[in-house]
Parts: sequence; C-alpha cells; structure tokens
Amino acid sequence: MFLAALALFVPATAFAAGDEGGHGGTFPLVFFFLAVMLLFARIGALAERFGQPAVLGELLLGVVLGMVAWVPGLGVVESLKHEVLVKDIAEIGVILLLFRAGLESNIGEMAKVGKNALFVALIGVALPFVAGFLVSQALLPGLDTNVYLFIGATLTATSVGITARVFKDLGTSKSPEAKIVLGAAVIDDVLGLMILAVVSSIIKTGSLDPTQIAIISAKAFAFLSGSILLGQFLSPRTSALFSKVHTGHGMKMAIALIFCAGFAYVAALVGLAPIVGAFAAGLVLDPVHFKGFLPPAIVTRLRAWADSHPQEGVRKEMEEHAEHEEHAHVENLIEDISRFFVPIFFVYTGLQVNLAVFGDLKIVGVALVITVVAVLGKLAAGLAAGKGKNRLLVGAGMVPRGEVGLIFAGIGRELGVVDDRLFATIVIVVILTTLITPPALSVIAKRAAAKAEAAPKAA
Amino acid sequence: MFLAALALFVPATAFAAGDEGGHGGTFPLVFFFLAVMLLFARIGALAERFGQPAVLGELLLGVVLGMVAWVPGLGVVESLKHEVLVKDIAEIGVILLLFRAGLESNIGEMAKVGKNALFVALIGVALPFVAGFLVSQALLPGLDTNVYLFIGATLTATSVGITARVFKDLGTSKSPEAKIVLGAAVIDDVLGLMILAVVSSIIKTGSLDPTQIAIISAKAFAFLSGSILLGQFLSPRTSALFSKVHTGHGMKMAIALIFCAGFAYVAALVGLAPIVGAFAAGLVLDPVHFKGFLPPAIVTRLRAWADSHPQEGVRKEMEEHAEHEEHAHVENLIEDISRFFVPIFFVYTGLQVNLAVFGDLKIVGVALVITVVAVLGKLAAGLAAGKGKNRLLVGAGMVPRGEVGLIFAGIGRELGVVDDRLFATIVIVVILTTLITPPALSVIAKRAAAKAEAAPKAA
Repeated sequence: MFLAALALFVPATAFAAGDEGGHGGTFPLVFFFLAVMLLFARIGALAERFGQPAVLGELLLGVVLGMVAWVPGLGVVESLKHEVLVKDIAEIGVILLLFRAGLESNIGEMAKVGKNALFVALIGVALPFVAGFLVSQALLPGLDTNVYLFIGATLTATSVGITARVFKDLGTSKSPEAKIVLGAAVIDDVLGLMILAVVSSIIKTGSLDPTQIAIISAKAFAFLSGSILLGQFLSPRTSALFSKVHTGHGMKMAIALIFCAGFAYVAALVGLAPIVGAFAAGLVLDPVHFKGFLPPAIVTRLRAWADSHPQEGVRKEMEEHAEHEEHAHVENLIEDISRFFVPIFFVYTGLQVNLAVFGDLKIVGVALVITVVAVLGKLAAGLAAGKGKNRLLVGAGMVPRGEVGLIFAGIGRELGVVDDRLFATIVIVVILTTLITPPALSVIAKRAAAKAEAAPKAA
Repeated sequence: MFLAALALFVPATAFAAGDEGGHGGTFPLVFFFLAVMLLFARIGALAERFGQPAVLGELLLGVVLGMVAWVPGLGVVESLKHEVLVKDIAEIGVILLLFRAGLESNIGEMAKVGKNALFVALIGVALPFVAGFLVSQALLPGLDTNVYLFIGATLTATSVGITARVFKDLGTSKSPEAKIVLGAAVIDDVLGLMILAVVSSIIKTGSLDPTQIAIISAKAFAFLSGSILLGQFLSPRTSALFSKVHTGHGMKMAIALIFCAGFAYVAALVGLAPIVGAFAAGLVLDPVHFKGFLPPAIVTRLRAWADSHPQEGVRKEMEEHAEHEEHAHVENLIEDISRFFVPIFFVYTGLQVNLAVFGDLKIVGVALVITVVAVLGKLAAGLAAGKGKNRLLVGAGMVPRGEVGLIFAGIGRELGVVDDRLFATIVIVVILTTLITPPALSVIAKRAAAKAEAAPKAA
C-alpha cells in the first residue's frame, strides 16, 4: 500500500521543491518515511512469532526497505536514509536502548555470580577481540590497523536481551548457567564500552600512545564505576524523589529522560560516546531500587479486588496483575517513547546495509569466517563457567552480538574506519550469531535435561 | 537541578567542539535540551491543578526557559532553540496535534447541531478576521497588507479542546450550547485551515490574484471535504483492517502514523500545509468508527470478572473499565508518542517569544486591544446560536484561540510575515483568551443555572 503511495506521490521534483521553512518542503516526506520505517519495524517484529528476536526482524526489514531504493521512481529512499532527522531519531533510539540496558543491569545479581561470571566475561571479551583482530588481518590484508582493531572490538559484545528471553522461554532463567550468562553479559557491556572508548580514541588521535590509552581507559572506568557507586548511594534518594512525584507518568518520564540525556551529554563532554553516559545513567537508576514506586493506591485497590473475589482462577490472575503493578520500575517510564525511537534505530541500521557488496563473494566468505570466530570465542569463554555447570550452555548463551555489535558498527562507520563492505559484514555476523542462538540454546538445554534424567537411571 | 547542571557543563566551547559525526558533538547537548524542554512542559502542565489548561502552562514555561538564555553562561539556550532537531520534533508535535484534532472532530455530531453551529462558526470566523484586519491596520499603520491579513486569519481560530474540557468539568457537555460550540469549533478548524491556505498562498505569491485564491480555496476545500467523504466510505474497511491486526498496539500505531504522515505529505505536495493533511487524516480515521477495535477477548474477560463479582461497587467499577476498554479508539494509539512530541511543540512556541519586545509598551497595548477584538468577535458569533440557547455561553465558549492560534503564529513567522513583536503579541492574545475562558464559562453557566431555578418560582 505505502509502496504504491510512495511511487505515486514522489515526483522527482519533490526534493528540488523543498523550502527551508519546513512547512511544505522535504519535512513532510521525511516524516512519512519515519512512519514507513516504523511500520517496517513492526512487520519485522513479527519475527517473535517464529521464535526469533524482534531486533532481527527489524534489522532485516530495514535491509528490505533499503532495497526499495532500487525500484524505479523510488530512488528518493536513497536520499531519505541520509536525512539528518532520521539519523538523529535513530541516535535517540540507540541512547534510549543503552539507557535501558543500564537499567536492566542488576549489579546486585551480578555480584552474586561473581567470580565465574567475571572469568566468562573476561575470556569472552579477550578471545574474540584478539581472534577478530588476527583473523581479519589475515583475511583482509593491507588495511589500516585501526580497521582490524575495530572488528576485534565489535566481536567483544554480548547481547544479553536475546539470551535472557530464550532462557525465560525455556523456563530456566533462574538456573546457575542463566545467572552466569546474564552477569557476564553486563560485565561485557561495561568492558565493551571501555574498549569502544579506547579504540575510538586511537582512531581519532591516530596514535597508539600508551599514555592516551591509559587516560581514556581511566576516564571510561571512572565514569562507569563512578555511576555504579553513585547509583548505590543515590538510589534511596532518587527512589524517594520518584515516589514523591504524584503528577503522573509524564513528569517521571521527563525526570528519567533528564538523567539519561544529562549523563549522555556529560560523557560526550569528557570525550566518551554518549551511549556510555546513557548506560551509566541506567546503572544509576537501577530498576531494583524502584520497586513499588507506582502510586500504592492502585496496588491496594487491585489487591482488594483480588482478595474479595470468590473464584480462585480470577483471584490469582488479579493478584499477578497487582504484583506486576507494584513491581513496575523506571524502565516502564521510557517504554512509551522507546516504542517509537528504538525500532527506528534498528531499521536505520538495516537501511545502511548496501547489499551490492555481497556481489563480491569474498565478502560473504569473510563474513562467514568472522561469524565462526565470533561463535568459537564465546564458546571458549563458557569453559570458565566453573565446576558442575553446563559450560556449553553458558558459552552458547554468550554468542549473540545483537544491538551492541550494531552500535559498534555504526560508530565505526561514523569514525570512517568501517566502510560499506565491513558494515555489511558486521551486520551479517550480528544476524547470524543472533539467529542461531535461540535454537542452539534450546537444543543444548533439552539435551542436558534428558541427560540429567537418564543419569539416575543408569546409576 | 538541571539549571545548575547546564551552567556547570556548558562551556562556551561546547558548540565549537561539535563534530559532524553526531557522536560527541552538539547532538548530546540538543538531546539534553529536549529532555529539559519536556521537564518544563510537565511542570507547566501542573497548571491543570489550578483549573487552567495544560497548554497554557507549557507555553508559559517555554517562555521561562527562553529567559534562561539571559543567565550568564547559559547563552547557549539561545542557539539551542534554533536547532533543527528541536524544530523538527516540535513540527512532528504540531502534526500529531492536528491529527488528534481531526480524530476528535466528530462529523456526525456536528451535522446534528447543523445550521446553528454553522452560523456561529461563520460569524465567528468572518467577524474576527475583518475586525483583526482593520484594527491591526489602525494600530500598526504602514506595514505590509499581508501582515494585517495574517493577524485577521489568526483570530479566526477556535481551540475546541479547552472549552470541551471546561464543559466536561461543569457537567454540561451534553447541553445544546456545548454541542453547538463543539460543532462550530470543528467548522472553524476547517475554515481556519482554508483561510491559512489562502493567506499563505497570497503571501508566497505576493499577489491577490482572484484566480489563484480560487484555486487554492478549491484545493483546500476539496482536500478537507474529500477526506470527510473518504472517511465515511473507508471507515468500515479501515475499522476491519484495524480489528484484524492482532500484533499489538505497536503495529496499529504505525498504521495510524502512516495515515497521518501520508496525508501530511500529500497536502504538502498539492501546496497545502502538512497540518491540513494531518487534520484530514484524522477526519478519515474518525474515532467513532473504531469502537470495539481492541481485542474483544480483553473486554470479554473484564466483563466476566465484573459479572462474577459479589460487591456492587466493585462490579460497577469493573464494568466501567470494560466499557473504557471497548470504546478505546485510534486516538489512544498515538497517545504514547504524542506525550513526547506535543508538549515539545508548546514549549518550543513559548521559547520563541522574545520578552524584550514588551519593553515597548505600545506592543502591550496592541496585544490588549487585539485580545478585546478577539473576544468580542466570538461573543458576537454566539448571537447566532438560535432561540432558547444561552448565547453568551456559546460565544464565550468560542473565545479561546489555544493551539490553533499558536500554529498560525508559527507559520506566519516562517513565512516571514510575523516578526518578533507580532509573534509575542499573538502569543499574548492566545494566552489571555485561553486564560479567561474557564472562569468565564463557569460563571456564565452557574448564573444561567441560578436563573433557571429562580424563573419557575417567579412564574
């Protein structure tokens, strides 16, 4: 429908006629394009119905939307994907995404799995980084050292969201393996953001000066660990602040956004990526401290309804609802606007993939080899899971690169170190590692369960 | 808090250091500014607690935020308010606002009050237009005719939202007077958008060529009435489409946005303002046709809960909840993102007010005289309310200019016909007409009720 509409209403002059005023030039077309991106994102999110993460579908539909530019008369899509407004909205999306990642990073839970998660994370960062550097150097000789550094850095990422979802679907999110994976993924996020800071600094300054690297590492470390400490110290106070605000959802959303945007800005001021700041803001406003900050009156009323109901089934359903209301946290506040901005980021990333590069079969080969390296590096990390743990399950859980890999690719592109071919390669690695994880985890978990059942019989 | 943060973290070099990449230049600062705008909007919305419309508070807090630029070290606010991203987000806000206005415009209800509403609307548009033109010409002689035309056009607007809210608060939203006001306000919106199209065209082409005026009027008329007809024809089909989409809220929101953005773009293509298209899209997706499009399963379950509950109070409350769920309409779909974009528009408008112009007391005087003209014009329109109606109540209900007046002022500013002084003047007129309406309506309604009570006794 919209394709027909686009073809019908996009005369070649639409851009030429654009005026500066914004009321009647390209702005309405860009806004329409954003709406189309959102629709594509929603169609892509249907991937969840096939047991795949929404991210994957959104990314792929972005690639599809990019192909629309090849349709005669729709070349305008090629210009639209470079529009500043589209880019800025995608950037707000990625900042909100990292803010949410910070909010979801439960430091307390992470500390509990402690040593094992730390080892898994460290190996899962170091191995793919070194392997990615060496393998890309071997496969694509003659490029700048920065390129190999960046590919290595991209492979360090772990997307906790996808694995967490699969563990939940399998009913094993409370297992020791799940806890290690989730803990390690958070550490990976922190380490990954530090590596990003260092690698970006190397690329920008063009030198491998150890003093520079030490300074930027210290900055990133201070920023992130400072935020964790600040969070522990501030949370009772911020919690109190949020519970005192009785002016509805909107005001709390604004305060949460002020935190997120303020930290992102401060990060930029000290020379770090804004996403590092957004992640740190999420750590400061760690959701566990916001339990019960919704007006208690709502919860009380729901509980009263539930208690007074004669049917047990209904009573239970209502109690669960009350529970859900009571445990609502700061994340819910930005859910509404995330629903608009975040999918735009994924579609935007897909849009930037130039499929033409795959005409060169070598690129496809490189993408596949790097994917294998990416998988093996994380599987090896699983070996550090400790005695009595299913090491394969832990390793497989660390495989998906998801959004974090995409963010790295996007930043590399802006720094000028990732070209069209590398960008497409990284997107393929992200897609493949993300695609294979849900079925792989499911098979490994089921096999382990079958084995555990068979073992006592054999004994 | 954020002021201190701003002062602390905005070195004079922040802008100079901006890079094109977006990851580390001005972008994070602009995003932070947007978050601050949103917080100011929320604080402004507290006006509702004092019986004033949220719009008013948001606008005033925007003016306050603009004053922050005078604080030493915070001059950066002056540049931030001209940032493209801020402007574009405000523009998305105003498009969503007009889309909602279209959704709220119930054509069926309007047809019922028919002739009376039409007369009230016509007089309420014609009188303020002519009076605004003549009075501004007398007060501000020597300006371009276009300026007087634009001031006249701005005074034609009626903001239905504010009056609707007051009638609702007074419990009289079903009264004949309320229906006439709401019907006339919708006609005013349509007429106002047509006048905007014509006046904009005159300003752009610089000629009062009757053929041109006829063409643009015909276009605007065809666009708006075509949308109404299309809506009547399409609504069963779109209703069916929406009820078939079972992929959650997000997909429906995307489809609603596609409608809105698509119409806005088509309007721009045929030379009309995008807001005309957005309003027309709202007419096409008129909410009454979307009753019951939420998954019926939810409603059924809620009804079952309600029916099986022994306590009557709880049962009633639950039934109301089910009713609410069943009657949810397309407007709810864009509520989430409206909560972000729309308040940004009002704060943005307030930001553009240059308070320095009021140093010239003449401007204040002009603003007051135009406000009086604006009030009298609409009060006179109330005389056409018909026999047996409270004409004063109808007239007073038409007084607030609200968001529509602001939109006109903004467009006039972009067309270069409204300068700083006139912009501030129009904002003052909007603020005053909006400010006096709630208490005035309340007094008039109560006096009428007292009179009605006293009358039978006297008889």
